[in-house]
Amino acid sequence: MRFLVTGAAGFIGSNVVDRLLADGHEVVGFDSYITGQREFLTGAFASPKFRLIEGDLFDLTSVIEACVGIDTVIHFAANADVRFGTNHPRRDLDQNVIVTWNVLEGMRRNGVKTIAFSSTGSVYGVAPRIPTPEDCPLPIQTSLYGASKLAAEGFISAYAEGFGVRAIIFRFVSILGERYTHGHVFDFYKQLLEHPDYLRVLGDGSQRKGYLHVQDCVDAIMIALDKSDEKVGIFNLGVPGYCQLTDSIGWISNHLGLNPRLEYTGGKQGWIGDNPFIFLDCWKMCSLGWQPKLSIEAAVRRTVDYLQANKWVLERRP
Amino acid sequence: MRFLVTGAAGFIGSNVVDRLLADGHEVVGFDSYITGQREFLTGAFASPKFRLIEGDLFDLTSVIEACVGIDTVIHFAANADVRFGTNHPRRDLDQNVIVTWNVLEGMRRNGVKTIAFSSTGSVYGVAPRIPTPEDCPLPIQTSLYGASKLAAEGFISAYAEGFGVRAIIFRFVSILGERYTHGHVFDFYKQLLEHPDYLRVLGDGSQRKGYLHVQDCVDAIMIALDKSDEKVGIFNLGVPGYCQLTDSIGWISNHLGLNPRLEYTGGKQGWIGDNPFIFLDCWKMCSLGWQPKLSIEAAVRRTVDYLQANKWVLERRP
Repeated sequence: MRFLVTGAAGFIGSNVVDRLLADGHEVVGFDSYITGQREFLTGAFASPKFRLIEGDLFDLTSVIEACVGIDTVIHFAANADVRFGTNHPRRDLDQNVIVTWNVLEGMRRNGVKTIAFSSTGSVYGVAPRIPTPEDCPLPIQTSLYGASKLAAEGFISAYAEGFGVRAIIFRFVSILGERYTHGHVFDFYKQLLEHPDYLRVLGDGSQRKGYLHVQDCVDAIMIALDKSDEKVGIFNLGVPGYCQLTDSIGWISNHLGLNPRLEYTGGKQGWIGDNPFIFLDCWKMCSLGWQPKLSIEAAVRRTVDYLQANKWVLERRP
Repeated sequence: MRFLVTGAAGFIGSNVVDRLLADGHEVVGFDSYITGQREFLTGAFASPKFRLIEGDLFDLTSVIEACVGIDTVIHFAANADVRFGTNHPRRDLDQNVIVTWNVLEGMRRNGVKTIAFSSTGSVYGVAPRIPTPEDCPLPIQTSLYGASKLAAEGFISAYAEGFGVRAIIFRFVSILGERYTHGHVFDFYKQLLEHPDYLRVLGDGSQRKGYLHVQDCVDAIMIALDKSDEKVGIFNLGVPGYCQLTDSIGWISNHLGLNPRLEYTGGKQGWIGDNPFIFLDCWKMCSLGWQPKLSIEAAVRRTVDYLQANKWVLERRP
């Protein structure tokens, strides 16, 4: 099979590329290197079955060209920054909606039949049911990021109906693990490198969230690509549980042998539009034969190990 | 109060403009006249409290200027053509999503605090529950039109959360009545003018749909603007029932004194992405003190009367 992976040099994208190559597939990567890292593709570049297109998905012509001869598109390129959405209110529309439309159009014009898409549990807003199943009551969007991902899901589904594309949509919790480059473990580790005795925490620490290790995430993607037979298959991805932010702070501090003084900014939310309780019902994905292997604690600890061994990542991202 | 009405020269928009002026408000209309009709604003132009900006909402600068001094935006400009979505797959993204984002940005930059938005029952796709309440299970999109309207709803909601805008979102069934310019009554009336003894019907005639008269629709908009106190208030709008397409054909034929031979194209759907059964639960809107005054049959008959008295409308629209 010949795959196009957008966001190929990103955290999840590069892990997907490595898995596809290990499974013997041909892979065309597409990345702008704006947030993606060349280093994440070191292994991929060693394979004769990999090539990378350095380009901007906002340019429809490039996308159409990239889709030539492709069987399946794994569209993981995105603005994944939910927290600072209101600082640049156009970015999610451009990078998550218009770019996804470009990918769909590239597929349509080349007869590409399958798309896998990285959506997010943020589409549930302040989730109307917990644990949240894929068909929970229609939620009200609370972040530009969530709104843009739900918008992209909608266009993907409409293309599936209108043009016979098969779509697999993953609604992720936050993903942790090797090549992780943003999120709370990143922020906390970076802070603790600078001032090991003090940690500033957004919100009151009571936020409850699900996390998933990137290899468990990649497992699920491969299984769903193989087994999902719906026109539009939507799958939550997370572990069967959640942790409180203070739990995670404890694991990180313990792993580093530190005991920082904690200062909370206060409030139930870390930022405007933050969903203070994310716990997805992932039963549907499990019914395809998947189950996550790593707990949240193990995923957090492995992420800290990765950051310790790859401090250059901290310098690349502000 | 000072209102900006986008799509002011459209079917529903112009009826809203007339009501706002009758209620003593100042109204700025915005229309490109691409599908809007100058004739629909004849009454409005006679009022000193009305002015029209002829422009394109795709141009952000124009939108920002139009929002100066506005209290409430009624954003009704849209590509409202659900049926031919797959013929021009970019149009819904441009005219319904990007344009709505422009309106939100115009509001944000001018501190406009309230938006009313014309969404659609098409966001429910093949509705997972009937009658369909606003918080039905998260549906899968089946049309580019529905997808684009749900996307716009999402950005509106995210702006409400992020920037303190109050949003009122109406999910309409098909609207009928004076100044109606597209839909099945339009198509059938036009056909019967050309060949009174024969009618071509999309689908097998079993489609069941809700309809609402435009004056009942405008009543609901005014009541919700006055009484909705949610940050994001979402309201289905329709009558407490539905008709089968064959019922409507009977009323139209009877009203015109005709007995055409019917030819069905077949299939449960009229077109790709058509939802063959639309029946919205409008209890939430009724709880604000609204109720529709006209039945579907009365609305259909009044629409035929309007088209008979305004045949110029048939020539304007293909």
